[in-house]
Amino acid sequence: MVSTHERLRDLVGDLWNKYTRHEFVERLRNGSLPMDVFRYYLIQDTKYVREMQKAVIKAASKAPLNEAIDILTAVFSNVERGGAEVHERLFHDLSITEDEVNNTGGFNLVNYAYTKHLHYYASLGWPQFLAAWAPCMWGGYYEIGKYVVGTGNSIFNAWAEFYASNDYWSRVEAILRTLDKCGGNAGHGEGV
Amino acid sequence: MVSTHERLRDLVGDLWNKYTRHEFVERLRNGSLPMDVFRYYLIQDTKYVREMQKAVIKAASKAPLNEAIDILTAVFSNVERGGAEVHERLFHDLSITEDEVNNTGGFNLVNYAYTKHLHYYASLGWPQFLAAWAPCMWGGYYEIGKYVVGTGNSIFNAWAEFYASNDYWSRVEAILRTLDKCGGNAGHGEGV
Repeated sequence: MVSTHERLRDLVGDLWNKYTRHEFVERLRNGSLPMDVFRYYLIQDTKYVREMQKAVIKAASKAPLNEAIDILTAVFSNVERGGAEVHERLFHDLSITEDEVNNTGGFNLVNYAYTKHLHYYASLGWPQFLAAWAPCMWGGYYEIGKYVVGTGNSIFNAWAEFYASNDYWSRVEAILRTLDKCGGNAGHGEGV
Repeated sequence: MVSTHERLRDLVGDLWNKYTRHEFVERLRNGSLPMDVFRYYLIQDTKYVREMQKAVIKAASKAPLNEAIDILTAVFSNVERGGAEVHERLFHDLSITEDEVNNTGGFNLVNYAYTKHLHYYASLGWPQFLAAWAPCMWGGYYEIGKYVVGTGNSIFNAWAEFYASNDYWSRVEAILRTLDKCGGNAGHGEGV
């Protein structure tokens, strides 16, 4: 039987590949992405992650307790380790400071759209939020990390290694497992 | 300078000792507490903890992100370890099943009052919630655990050892540290 997360991915059709094999991804992989583009991405990503984390906690406050604890544990328990270390190294190598992130007022359009999408579904309900969030953790970070890892550029590779790691997969897996438990309830959002 | 958490404890005066040196506590320590009273407590406590955890997540959804992550990490990251093990052992020794907990419909009056108190302050705001919650983790579990540990009754001692542990203290410490950061904002609840 096809799981809910596989079914949802199949439903988006070719968008999945357009997303995980975007030109940005291909150029991380072949090392041709200009470093100032990656630097711009990292600043937007840092702003993104803060909003994503707020939305996760908001959604968890409406979830069944055992599922909320599973997800919060998976997402936050190792937050001090892997993620923070890679983040710190990349910020150091690219001379990005917390101040620069905080002083970058704007979210770009895609970032604005997806963070507001997450907040909206966090208000709507837990299964809907998981369905909205899964493409971030699963397709966006994990699958792209796996695809990019091994690139000749050491900065891009440090970034990809984190998302391609077993530790990161354990977070994604917790989300997909919970999404599968929610089953059919996850699909009832609004189309765009 | 007196910290916020010390100041708040001083404000409750003698109630603190009435609470942490309650007859129930003294009889855990000297081993004279009837086992059926302890069994009754454990069932109520299990129901309590579920509501407390829901209230923590609800309150965290309104907190500054870094403080929310600190607290959620402190409270839930080791949830699979120590706490669950002691819980399982005590449930086994006293023949308590999850079904019995779930089928015990009622919260007793004190349990009802405190869980609703936590939910109320979780809706009101983060500093207020921390002030409402600290007596549970700090005075209720940690201080009592420290006082009871070493008791001759092996069941009571297994219970106390968990709450008197360094791991448990690290949770309490995260709460008190965050409460101290909130400072004066934590005291503006309603008196009873």
